Amino acid sequence: MEASRIAEVFGIQLKQLNIEKEEIQSDSLTEIASHAALQAAKSRPYRVVSEDAGFFVEALGGFPGPYSAYAFRTLGTAGILKLMRGERNRNASFMAALAYCQPGKHPVCFKGVVKGVVSRRPKGTNGFGFDPIFIPLKGDGRTFAEMSIEEKNVISHRAGAFRQFSRWFTSKRE
Amino acid sequence: MEASRIAEVFGIQLKQLNIEKEEIQSDSLTEIASHAALQAAKSRPYRVVSEDAGFFVEALGGFPGPYSAYAFRTLGTAGILKLMRGERNRNASFMAALAYCQPGKHPVCFKGVVKGVVSRRPKGTNGFGFDPIFIPLKGDGRTFAEMSIEEKNVISHRAGAFRQFSRWFTSKRE
Repeated sequence: MEASRIAEVFGIQLKQLNIEKEEIQSDSLTEIASHAALQAAKSRPYRVVSEDAGFFVEALGGFPGPYSAYAFRTLGTAGILKLMRGERNRNASFMAALAYCQPGKHPVCFKGVVKGVVSRRPKGTNGFGFDPIFIPLKGDGRTFAEMSIEEKNVISHRAGAFRQFSRWFTSKRE
Repeated sequence: MEASRIAEVFGIQLKQLNIEKEEIQSDSLTEIASHAALQAAKSRPYRVVSEDAGFFVEALGGFPGPYSAYAFRTLGTAGILKLMRGERNRNASFMAALAYCQPGKHPVCFKGVVKGVVSRRPKGTNGFGFDPIFIPLKGDGRTFAEMSIEEKNVISHRAGAFRQFSRWFTSKRE
């Protein structure tokens, strides 16, 4: 899992909880992640981390945003490219929200964003979801799907959110 | 509200609860409505009815489905028509799921479906959401947005689900 590898760099061990995540509908990733972490930490003796990510296309009013997984399953990258036909503004971003929750406490949230553009056609086979049509600005023109996990982890939204969390968490412990 | 008017025909009075509905992410309207009803009936002395509806386009893998409100806000009817360009299969349906929940009990669910096609362009100003691009088969070729509320209530998915619920509810009482 991407997340564990990033967290490990900061000396944090994550373990996947074998429960169903309760995902609410909301335009806010932070709200979705917070709710899931709060629910998961309820009546469990664990400190929980929950993460939610989405692909936001500027010309599409932020679509598919928090519903990226569903949009990918139904429309795929082809659907997004079709919607982008004739659009001059190809700005898009991947965003991730991470919520940390200690049982009985309010969740604390962290965000990661990576800005880029929607490519003209899908490229690459790594990663998942809309990775093949997203070219990050902090890159060399390749899509997320053309990068190795190691390369993606340096700049990705998920990595950004986890990095912030890890820094906060380890500084709290010292 | 459409719902109260239909329920009243069956002698059922509905009152809008002034609370925020907890909507989960799911491909199943029944699951979304059940969860919301269960949450709303928790620690409240009311029998609760919750409803969820969506627009399902066959050629788009069911998209926008349970996320129709979000898809409408971001892509609009224009977005769906753009996605449908060149598609021969224009089959679509509106579906509604209604969950009834008595405090401390499991929710009971009812469904309503209305089949139709995606129109070539938006028509009509009544209704809301994707009504202007949906032509029900049980009609005269007009879109939902070209019908009056009274006409729509005879055939609509929402009306169908409420009608089923009302029949069940009143027969239970007798």
